[in-house]
Amino acid sequence: MLNGEKSISRPLRWAMIGGGRTGQVGYKHRTGALRDNTAFRLVAGAFDIDPERGRDFGVNLGVDPSRCYPDYQTMFEEEAKRPDGAEVVSIATPNGTHYEITKASLNAGMHVICEKPLFFEIAQVEEIKRLAEQKNKIVGVTYGFSGHPMLFQARKMIENGELGEIRIVSLRYTHGFSATEDAEKYSEAQKWRVDPKIAGPSFVIGDLSTHTYYMSQLMLPDLKIKQLLCDRQSFIKSRAPLEDNVHMLMHYDNGAVGTAWFSAVDAGYMESQTIRIVGSKASIEFSDFQPNRLLYQIQGQPYQILYHGMPYLKKEGLADDRFGALHTEGLGESWANIYLKFARAIEAADRNDINFLRTFVYPDINAGLEGVKWIQNCVRSADSGSVWVDFQ
Amino acid sequence: MLNGEKSISRPLRWAMIGGGRTGQVGYKHRTGALRDNTAFRLVAGAFDIDPERGRDFGVNLGVDPSRCYPDYQTMFEEEAKRPDGAEVVSIATPNGTHYEITKASLNAGMHVICEKPLFFEIAQVEEIKRLAEQKNKIVGVTYGFSGHPMLFQARKMIENGELGEIRIVSLRYTHGFSATEDAEKYSEAQKWRVDPKIAGPSFVIGDLSTHTYYMSQLMLPDLKIKQLLCDRQSFIKSRAPLEDNVHMLMHYDNGAVGTAWFSAVDAGYMESQTIRIVGSKASIEFSDFQPNRLLYQIQGQPYQILYHGMPYLKKEGLADDRFGALHTEGLGESWANIYLKFARAIEAADRNDINFLRTFVYPDINAGLEGVKWIQNCVRSADSGSVWVDFQ
Amino acid sequence: MLNGEKSISRPLRWAMIGGGRTGQVGYKHRTGALRDNTAFRLVAGAFDIDPERGRDFGVNLGVDPSRCYPDYQTMFEEEAKRPDGAEVVSIATPNGTHYEITKASLNAGMHVICEKPLFFEIAQVEEIKRLAEQKNKIVGVTYGFSGHPMLFQARKMIENGELGEIRIVSLRYTHGFSATEDAEKYSEAQKWRVDPKIAGPSFVIGDLSTHTYYMSQLMLPDLKIKQLLCDRQSFIKSRAPLEDNVHMLMHYDNGAVGTAWFSAVDAGYMESQTIRIVGSKASIEFSDFQPNRLLYQIQGQPYQILYHGMPYLKKEGLADDRFGALHTEGLGESWANIYLKFARAIEAADRNDINFLRTFVYPDINAGLEGVKWIQNCVRSADSGSVWVDFQ
Amino acid sequence: MLNGEKSISRPLRWAMIGGGRTGQVGYKHRTGALRDNTAFRLVAGAFDIDPERGRDFGVNLGVDPSRCYPDYQTMFEEEAKRPDGAEVVSIATPNGTHYEITKASLNAGMHVICEKPLFFEIAQVEEIKRLAEQKNKIVGVTYGFSGHPMLFQARKMIENGELGEIRIVSLRYTHGFSATEDAEKYSEAQKWRVDPKIAGPSFVIGDLSTHTYYMSQLMLPDLKIKQLLCDRQSFIKSRAPLEDNVHMLMHYDNGAVGTAWFSAVDAGYMESQTIRIVGSKASIEFSDFQPNRLLYQIQGQPYQILYHGMPYLKKEGLADDRFGALHTEGLGESWANIYLKFARAIEAADRNDINFLRTFVYPDINAGLEGVKWIQNCVRSADSGSVWVDFQ
Repeated sequence: MLNGEKSISRPLRWAMIGGGRTGQVGYKHRTGALRDNTAFRLVAGAFDIDPERGRDFGVNLGVDPSRCYPDYQTMFEEEAKRPDGAEVVSIATPNGTHYEITKASLNAGMHVICEKPLFFEIAQVEEIKRLAEQKNKIVGVTYGFSGHPMLFQARKMIENGELGEIRIVSLRYTHGFSATEDAEKYSEAQKWRVDPKIAGPSFVIGDLSTHTYYMSQLMLPDLKIKQLLCDRQSFIKSRAPLEDNVHMLMHYDNGAVGTAWFSAVDAGYMESQTIRIVGSKASIEFSDFQPNRLLYQIQGQPYQILYHGMPYLKKEGLADDRFGALHTEGLGESWANIYLKFARAIEAADRNDINFLRTFVYPDINAGLEGVKWIQNCVRSADSGSVWVDFQ
Repeated sequence: MLNGEKSISRPLRWAMIGGGRTGQVGYKHRTGALRDNTAFRLVAGAFDIDPERGRDFGVNLGVDPSRCYPDYQTMFEEEAKRPDGAEVVSIATPNGTHYEITKASLNAGMHVICEKPLFFEIAQVEEIKRLAEQKNKIVGVTYGFSGHPMLFQARKMIENGELGEIRIVSLRYTHGFSATEDAEKYSEAQKWRVDPKIAGPSFVIGDLSTHTYYMSQLMLPDLKIKQLLCDRQSFIKSRAPLEDNVHMLMHYDNGAVGTAWFSAVDAGYMESQTIRIVGSKASIEFSDFQPNRLLYQIQGQPYQILYHGMPYLKKEGLADDRFGALHTEGLGESWANIYLKFARAIEAADRNDINFLRTFVYPDINAGLEGVKWIQNCVRSADSGSVWVDFQ
Repeated sequence: MLNGEKSISRPLRWAMIGGGRTGQVGYKHRTGALRDNTAFRLVAGAFDIDPERGRDFGVNLGVDPSRCYPDYQTMFEEEAKRPDGAEVVSIATPNGTHYEITKASLNAGMHVICEKPLFFEIAQVEEIKRLAEQKNKIVGVTYGFSGHPMLFQARKMIENGELGEIRIVSLRYTHGFSATEDAEKYSEAQKWRVDPKIAGPSFVIGDLSTHTYYMSQLMLPDLKIKQLLCDRQSFIKSRAPLEDNVHMLMHYDNGAVGTAWFSAVDAGYMESQTIRIVGSKASIEFSDFQPNRLLYQIQGQPYQILYHGMPYLKKEGLADDRFGALHTEGLGESWANIYLKFARAIEAADRNDINFLRTFVYPDINAGLEGVKWIQNCVRSADSGSVWVDFQ
Repeated sequence: MLNGEKSISRPLRWAMIGGGRTGQVGYKHRTGALRDNTAFRLVAGAFDIDPERGRDFGVNLGVDPSRCYPDYQTMFEEEAKRPDGAEVVSIATPNGTHYEITKASLNAGMHVICEKPLFFEIAQVEEIKRLAEQKNKIVGVTYGFSGHPMLFQARKMIENGELGEIRIVSLRYTHGFSATEDAEKYSEAQKWRVDPKIAGPSFVIGDLSTHTYYMSQLMLPDLKIKQLLCDRQSFIKSRAPLEDNVHMLMHYDNGAVGTAWFSAVDAGYMESQTIRIVGSKASIEFSDFQPNRLLYQIQGQPYQILYHGMPYLKKEGLADDRFGALHTEGLGESWANIYLKFARAIEAADRNDINFLRTFVYPDINAGLEGVKWIQNCVRSADSGSVWVDFQ
């Protein structure tokens, strides 16, 4: 159980790039980082492409006006001059800027926490990975749903063989908010998501599927995709070549198979992600719309529904519980959990604790790399005529 | 609403082939046919491959002992001699015998109601279709879930454009009863289902998917599959080449896409079939585990759950309701509904009412043909390396 | 499992009084009695207060026109003259006529199956009970939901002590179909239900609660109510003194307590009955809207959902299963199950098998008596100012 | 929507009494108060009855060691000496200490936020209310579930008449964590809850029902209880006279009726609170286990499920939304919302903004008073033999 007591020796000095008033994502970062006041302290920011609005916003968050900067370059320059300058930065800007800002951040001596999907190209990730290693800095990726405790319960049950041999993986993350063209007409956040120059080579693959794929890998660390097939559509024609719906098939190296559905045109659907994992003995199913439960279905036995915070869970499923049984947790707790992991990883890096980092599970740059690979393979398959491709 | 009053002028004289004491399927036929005593009367049968057991069983059902026959050939011979001989026969035997028995039945002057999947080869279905036309007989196919009233509600809503343009079709019928090899060790019914000589070219494709596919076609009569891709597995190796799990992708002629999952190794899953249809404005979702409800999700509006028997339903969704709102209907009512349709079709054929038959919707031989085509296309795709094939 | 094979030596000759075309209840009786053609055969009827309509209806059900009678008196007279005359009659008429018709039926030598609530007065039931014993006839009561197999699963689990000591009983049967006065304006069936001369001393207590109360007694045969308190309302004033909503509290003789809510003004609610039984170790919950499942909640363990037809159920929970796992059963199967029990009880009475009848569990006249007592006690409490009364 | 921007001019200097490491409740206060760093700052505390443990804990939360006090008296003395001393204190200690500490806090010039139930006696609350008015201080009560946005959606729908005239209120808050005596054997928090000297005159009435009752009053501000009846039990005998289960009936002044069930022995139940409100036209149902949804059931229309964050909600239902549609909120957001209201009320008091406070809805001392009255009336009814009493 987590109760807000410090997990690291002192709160980290944290700055944000992007995440301003006009979007929703910034608040999720702040609600994650600032949750208990013992992991991060917000000291600076370049919150908005509009400097005035960004400054006003930062002040409203309690940031010293002199540390609300018009742009990240200025922020890095000025913060570098202070003994108490920011030491870690979160990047919550549109996809197309991630690579450049991450690079600048690392070069400015910052640890980095970046929105998914990380960058457009695998080579970019590999370059940044080398740079981060050289600078001894962390690059974390905000797969924001991946802090739900039940995912770790599932991971441990699978590791223990409680499902038997894994046979089938079924992933879904769909909604209908982009069912019509109005979506991009009325929302800036949606507009850039369907612009390849800013969003990169995909819309829903990058925007939705990278979350679910990472969560599945978290539960199934030993399963690797060998081949996949991706069939993508642009039901709103103006979005082409970016897809608003995609179906995938996967073959894993152990003989398991998978399917995935990601969509922004699943009209009326409101229940977000579902991950089902079928083994030879039993299945589990997690939905981030009901994150306080985990379905456990043993063949030939009654369905079981496991509830968060209960003593019958594994210690791994209880470690990040915050409220205890009966008391609902939601997305906010998940973000708080991953930000706390970022903090612990950063502190470990700062003390050069390689051993800790070698086994510590959090959405790190390798998770970001895997996400970019996933996108690349999906797009390659789709653009080759929705055919099977080897996962590279 | 149906209340058991006669829909045809007199009950039809009905016989069964198979469907004996050792399997479950026969009772579904009887519960369908005999429901109200105004559509069919069970007058004869060759219920079992074991003549003694079959005779004992028939007598226990109230059939005259002299009309409990050791085999269908004898039955046809003897019944032909009677002025009150059987006029329609249901075939509830393993797949591999359907073609031969159907042919013999038609040649004996019987209308036929046959278990799905109809036959192994398209050519066989076409031959039987010609024979049935020539004999002026009906061949119905027992897609037993296809009588649920909510399917007709959905069909009408889609026809009315209440979903907008159809974009995505998602089909599922999975269970885990064959998760281990024990399934065929302990169940005769399962043993033949994985024997290609008796089951034909597929296991779950034939056994499960033909149901769901027909139900989707019932809801979407205007959507035709243009191409599909089928990826099948035999997780229990001894079942190969027959699959115990299959994933499919579909492309429809209007630009819609689809996915399908059918499995007998979905460990622990107990909730049967789900059909989701996504349009540009709204989606509907039907589950045969909850057949008294229909989900209706209009983008940007609250979820709606429609309940069976309510005045707000279309007349098509109320036509086959039997118990009225609040009172749960299940699979038994669905079978009763399709058997009643068979009776009405048979009477129409007997009075040469071509016009009636032209527009009357029930699982007829064309539905059976479509099911065999579906299996053939799936198997061809799978056996070609899980690639896209044109639907032929 | 039941599969339609005969449970008694020959089908009983069955007649109906009431249950005609204008109401819904008659079809439930017929769907119960005629289910498998091996328990009852419909040979006669006085189906309707309008003789012409009743005759037309009977003919449409396949009854010989000469045995469709204008009234029950004529029916008894004429059937008595036939060697193959009716031997059991079902009474599906408004409450106020039950006593008189049951008495006449017994005096005509018939077994009786009567709608609930049986009669208005305890003395009437006791008189009829004596008459039935004297005539060696059965009086069954159609608590139509009480044939769901999961109720017997629950009964056995409770008997086994799997819940521990029973502490709390929670009953609910609510809907909103009478939320406005339009209910009785547009429905004959509703109109008499709020007329004390025809319905008796209560509306929802008799119409709804007797079902749920009987089902709870079926699950808890050893628990007796010691005291109860009943608070009833007539939200539609014109219904007074008959209530359209009622809340109750109960004290059982073992120290358990209970609550109950019955309503016809629970606006918009569509999920019928719920029975929750809480023991010192675990709880179970049954909903007749989801009759194929039973919730089993052991304190400190994951929720369990038991599914009908599964081998892990008790033999008592499987005995009346008809379709097997995965295949949904509904209210129709429940009616078929209780009618089959009536048939078995009638046959036992005819062969004077007292021992069988002593232990055979079905909704008999004692269950009917208990229902009338329940109503009487509820009304007495309510009319005394919603105070505690001893259950008499 | 809330995004963490300041709602008051500067964060309040906040201290805690109790809420230390050994219980769960303190974290809920901190997660509420500290959520966005713009409403409260934790500057001091007397966190634990064990001074050493309390000091260690406070330091771990980032509090200056010199401001981690051994007891609240010392804290008030020392903080009074500082220009930046605490100005508001939260009390998260066992019930029996609330009155004394609240009084001391007000006398020390603090605003107070206190755990429910407030005090044991109505006279105590009235005295404290006068004292708070005299000192111009706020006393807030942490009905922690009462910040869920859907409650305000429901309140507005009811105010608008969308349910029609209110007829029935149904309240439930049950769990099974105290099903056996082990509960108090192994948990300190449970031990004092069943000790009348510390817990006051009730266990579950105070511990559970005050939450649900307040939430119902929030939704139904115009409905007043006229009479109630309370039937309480101590299934674990050693808890007597404190109850571990209670059933209630209510009569409201507008003619509506209600029921309530509160229990700590509802074995295995994990889904917390449900509030159902039935009107003449429609019903709504809220469950704090599913706080992101609201059921809306209009008689004669399909069920509706409303989802949090959606534009179709009232502005009142959106005002406190934090994450937007699709993204689950839980109990943490509810606490953050009520703490933010406390902050706004405190700032209003500090600027003597009587008009603001007159209409601002939050769980204030009147809400606390109402909770104590509720307990008193319930206990009076129960102890008089579970009879109707006038609500005083």
